Amino acid sequence: MVVILKKNANQVQYTNLVEWLKSMNIDIHVCQGTHETILGLIGDTSRLDINLIKALDIVEEVRRIQEPYKNANRKFHPDDTVVSVGDDFKIGGGNFAMIAGPCSVESEEQIIEIAEQVKAAGATMLRGGAFKPRTSPYSFQGLKGEGLKLLLEAKKMTGLPIVTELMDLSDLPLFDEVDVIQVGARNMQNFAMLRELGHLRKPILLKRGLSSTLEELLMSAEYIMAGGNEDVILCERGIRTFETMTRNTLDISAIPVLKTLSHLPVIIDPSHAIGISKYVKPLSMAATAAGADGLIIEVHNNPQYAKCDGQQSLTPAAFQDVADTVRAILPHRYTLNKQM
Amino acid sequence: MVVILKKNANQVQYTNLVEWLKSMNIDIHVCQGTHETILGLIGDTSRLDINLIKALDIVEEVRRIQEPYKNANRKFHPDDTVVSVGDDFKIGGGNFAMIAGPCSVESEEQIIEIAEQVKAAGATMLRGGAFKPRTSPYSFQGLKGEGLKLLLEAKKMTGLPIVTELMDLSDLPLFDEVDVIQVGARNMQNFAMLRELGHLRKPILLKRGLSSTLEELLMSAEYIMAGGNEDVILCERGIRTFETMTRNTLDISAIPVLKTLSHLPVIIDPSHAIGISKYVKPLSMAATAAGADGLIIEVHNNPQYAKCDGQQSLTPAAFQDVADTVRAILPHRYTLNKQM
Amino acid sequence: MVVILKKNANQVQYTNLVEWLKSMNIDIHVCQGTHETILGLIGDTSRLDINLIKALDIVEEVRRIQEPYKNANRKFHPDDTVVSVGDDFKIGGGNFAMIAGPCSVESEEQIIEIAEQVKAAGATMLRGGAFKPRTSPYSFQGLKGEGLKLLLEAKKMTGLPIVTELMDLSDLPLFDEVDVIQVGARNMQNFAMLRELGHLRKPILLKRGLSSTLEELLMSAEYIMAGGNEDVILCERGIRTFETMTRNTLDISAIPVLKTLSHLPVIIDPSHAIGISKYVKPLSMAATAAGADGLIIEVHNNPQYAKCDGQQSLTPAAFQDVADTVRAILPHRYTLNKQM
Amino acid sequence: MVVILKKNANQVQYTNLVEWLKSMNIDIHVCQGTHETILGLIGDTSRLDINLIKALDIVEEVRRIQEPYKNANRKFHPDDTVVSVGDDFKIGGGNFAMIAGPCSVESEEQIIEIAEQVKAAGATMLRGGAFKPRTSPYSFQGLKGEGLKLLLEAKKMTGLPIVTELMDLSDLPLFDEVDVIQVGARNMQNFAMLRELGHLRKPILLKRGLSSTLEELLMSAEYIMAGGNEDVILCERGIRTFETMTRNTLDISAIPVLKTLSHLPVIIDPSHAIGISKYVKPLSMAATAAGADGLIIEVHNNPQYAKCDGQQSLTPAAFQDVADTVRAILPHRYTLNKQM
Repeated sequence: MVVILKKNANQVQYTNLVEWLKSMNIDIHVCQGTHETILGLIGDTSRLDINLIKALDIVEEVRRIQEPYKNANRKFHPDDTVVSVGDDFKIGGGNFAMIAGPCSVESEEQIIEIAEQVKAAGATMLRGGAFKPRTSPYSFQGLKGEGLKLLLEAKKMTGLPIVTELMDLSDLPLFDEVDVIQVGARNMQNFAMLRELGHLRKPILLKRGLSSTLEELLMSAEYIMAGGNEDVILCERGIRTFETMTRNTLDISAIPVLKTLSHLPVIIDPSHAIGISKYVKPLSMAATAAGADGLIIEVHNNPQYAKCDGQQSLTPAAFQDVADTVRAILPHRYTLNKQM
Repeated sequence: MVVILKKNANQVQYTNLVEWLKSMNIDIHVCQGTHETILGLIGDTSRLDINLIKALDIVEEVRRIQEPYKNANRKFHPDDTVVSVGDDFKIGGGNFAMIAGPCSVESEEQIIEIAEQVKAAGATMLRGGAFKPRTSPYSFQGLKGEGLKLLLEAKKMTGLPIVTELMDLSDLPLFDEVDVIQVGARNMQNFAMLRELGHLRKPILLKRGLSSTLEELLMSAEYIMAGGNEDVILCERGIRTFETMTRNTLDISAIPVLKTLSHLPVIIDPSHAIGISKYVKPLSMAATAAGADGLIIEVHNNPQYAKCDGQQSLTPAAFQDVADTVRAILPHRYTLNKQM
Repeated sequence: MVVILKKNANQVQYTNLVEWLKSMNIDIHVCQGTHETILGLIGDTSRLDINLIKALDIVEEVRRIQEPYKNANRKFHPDDTVVSVGDDFKIGGGNFAMIAGPCSVESEEQIIEIAEQVKAAGATMLRGGAFKPRTSPYSFQGLKGEGLKLLLEAKKMTGLPIVTELMDLSDLPLFDEVDVIQVGARNMQNFAMLRELGHLRKPILLKRGLSSTLEELLMSAEYIMAGGNEDVILCERGIRTFETMTRNTLDISAIPVLKTLSHLPVIIDPSHAIGISKYVKPLSMAATAAGADGLIIEVHNNPQYAKCDGQQSLTPAAFQDVADTVRAILPHRYTLNKQM
Repeated sequence: MVVILKKNANQVQYTNLVEWLKSMNIDIHVCQGTHETILGLIGDTSRLDINLIKALDIVEEVRRIQEPYKNANRKFHPDDTVVSVGDDFKIGGGNFAMIAGPCSVESEEQIIEIAEQVKAAGATMLRGGAFKPRTSPYSFQGLKGEGLKLLLEAKKMTGLPIVTELMDLSDLPLFDEVDVIQVGARNMQNFAMLRELGHLRKPILLKRGLSSTLEELLMSAEYIMAGGNEDVILCERGIRTFETMTRNTLDISAIPVLKTLSHLPVIIDPSHAIGISKYVKPLSMAATAAGADGLIIEVHNNPQYAKCDGQQSLTPAAFQDVADTVRAILPHRYTLNKQM
């Protein structure tokens, strides 16, 4: 960390700062110039609250050099994390996840039909919303507990592990048999939830917030990991920009950047990123080529009558086509050169 | 609502759409062109799920004309909502709120000293965080329940009503004596929380999310109001843009736009918007001139040693200066011309 | 185009509007509701200035349905445009362009060495800046006319056609032997320049502005095409968002969206999009998989001593690796399904 | 400037870097840690190209501490610049500019009528577009040279100095009698134009680009000032964000931030920022309260029939109302505390 002091900084305050930093085992190197004084702080600064230092009267500015996360940091864990789901399914470290299913669980027939179809097309995991975050209080809000039961039914029928979103901690007891718990984009900084999920021993699929930076995403992973739960799967699902032709803007660079900074697996949700079903295929191909550890794609047996997000849902046949194309690209995909 | 059909739309699907719309009491006007067919939907379209229609195979595009919110809409409630807090304090309809206090409650001496100082400077309400949303799991997370008790103590000593943030529904029972519950920017779309707060009969201060549109803010207010709680105070606190010199970008236009679209009071949080204490004064003056119904400002008796957000906190003396300046502008501030 | 009228619209103004529209050969369908009146305008609305209508006192809102561009619109030109450069080189319609070269031309040895190396690695065209747009007036501004001469020298030596940026119309006479003229991101809406380039018969590589929408990019292409120059190559090179870890955010979705809306070729500049050389490879792979018609990549024989953009430049060896990988993906890349 | 070296940096490259920096009169302080080495560079770093250093193999990261602009920097010119226009009119240093006029000059009657009306309402300067940047090649492009003549006619009739936009350097000879030349948002980084305007001795009104940072705006001012023209007026006119209800988002914070960083006058264009005439008044009031040195407002004698931007133009009567309100706020407006 680098601290730039104001010109003519008060000497007493300066001594206080130095003493406080030393008490936290930080070494200080002073670079004295005519216009400015720079302090180079050497040591473990990840637990220093940068804003506390910025607030000091004598401080002009503070720049962080070390990343503010440790558990999620590849520097301290060079090898890829491989998340195990159930007995058979792995993600990360070369294991590619193909997650598919409807935006929301609507009925037993619907979820079982879709589960069977996506499994046939090569899906390795089933997604489906039981609790649905909807912008309008007047839109369909999901089947809730009943939806969870139907998902577990589909799991029993097909053997596919399931991932579904938790919207409020009070529902957590219902998620016991769920294989992977999803934290939605709108809850990426629901810190009470993140903290609680850190005490579980169950994989968490953590979606990036609509306007969250990659560092903030990693800090949210750090919340979960700080509680001892190391099985976090990062998911880029589009960020909000000025462009209006697509629902969001897929930040494809997030794949190599996150994988360089962190050892956690990174998957892509092209359906929410673009919001239009006909563009899901090229985005899936791009994400695979760029080195994603998996995809999570919305599939509906009858998109036109889906209770939500029909506009971005693939038919099972279209999903089959996407899955086939992705498999053709997989052998050629990008793999991180850890020396760089 | 306007629905644009694809060229050569399937006739059976078209008839299905028309029948479905009619069953929802929507009148349909057809504009038939050579390149396109436009359906004008007339009636109460606020409960139509626009995405259901977009997903139809025969539909090229859908454009909403009516706003998707009703309770929060000024068209249906032309008069300003005036929110009452306790016996004496009002906000909206010409009543200006001056809310001040520390980022977080740190100790009894701290909160009481600040409460007395901001009251002396003209504050009409006390803010203070007990549960703190922090980006890093390693930063100070607030005194929690203990902090709430200290706030209530400060209320008793000064008579100032209090506003403080709820981070998780499980803490709600502790908020019984809190006058106004704050929903933070990161929880603006925590729909489970919004729904529950709709069942209270207590004012809610609803902060705009970092990348939420004004329409989404109003939809979140609609969630609360749909439950019967009509006392919602909207708060603009800066949005995320590409500019890096300020913490966020204050969207000053939100004041006249929100007040035109909605009857709810609109207040501004200049401290979080800009993140640098020396700029809080000009932003407070701008917000007042533009017609805000109030300000919520971070004040700390010793910003340099604040446990959070010291960089953006005013000293009590600086707050006194801001309050005095704002009072000088108040008689000249903008008031909505409802004829426009 | 759909026009929504205000309630109780003045009858004289309404008649005026209707007469004016009819005089422009627009048919009008009226949808009369209790809360609003909607006019459906049928005909060629691409030459109607939407803002003129929005400004009318009786108009609540206007929504465009037809695209405001014609020459660049795939609806009116279903087949891919294939741009020919010199005798041998084609781009679009299945022809993939691999354009490479330094940020700026620095010396004869430098540009010729790089040209030979990128040619050996499979580049089909040479890029290099002679006139350089630099944020600071104190940075290296390019060799200008001298740089152009060196580029032409490299062309003669290697046979590679060249593309280079025009920064001001007064320099245009120097560009006679340049094969493709680049309009930089900062000049995407330099309308005087676009108009003039429309009168040339030489391909134009048009870069998307940092915060330009895809529709604005197509409108800028329309400026050039309206003058009769139909050889426009669109280039996505990253947009500006709140993310700070990468120089810009590559909008990968631009590839399928632009190719759906327009028949013009679309290439990607991963170097400027991400700004960090080690991430150029995965982005190049992603762009190829998503169906781009080509790549334009910065390559320098000695990136550490490049006079600009060294941070994002590849060495010739690294470029060779990227080119090889891209060629492996090419057979599997996305191709537009024009039925969708 | 602070340079962070990679672990195990090559010693020869390190020595080269140190020698090169010393040759530029930069002093170097080394802070050696176990995980990283930090170099503190002391001296005039404003002419160091940060990207050259970032590109070095041994460099992990570079952080600038000093601002990269000098002529525009308040640190080196503590007093406000006061720009003189003609004999009577001043802007900056307490002098408030009220600039008004139509988006585009349409006819002699129009411009003279508006000029007289805005003068009567208190305008101190006349704006009007002769060369118009339009997104569509099919929209009205301005009267060009003829429009300039009409503006000069209006100047003669009313005595108001005029400001109008230059779109291409080749038109510069026509601008001899123009009092202030405007550089539009789309040309803020037209560096060839900025450089040329630096050689004039005529005030330049420099508009911020739609997605330009405040630092980039100051760097563009630096381009002009580096040529010796010190009369630059900065203009914030709204930036591009995700919000769609307003044309752009007025960055009100730009006023105090720019005035703190620079000695140049800062004016606000509320018309382009919001794009809707009924909101121009509250934004004008906010900008004045926040300490702007002036406003530039679109006024048309018949907004409904304006050839451009009618939607955001005020009638002369509405402008009179805005001007009166602004004058009431002026005595209370924010003034910079230079000690902070």
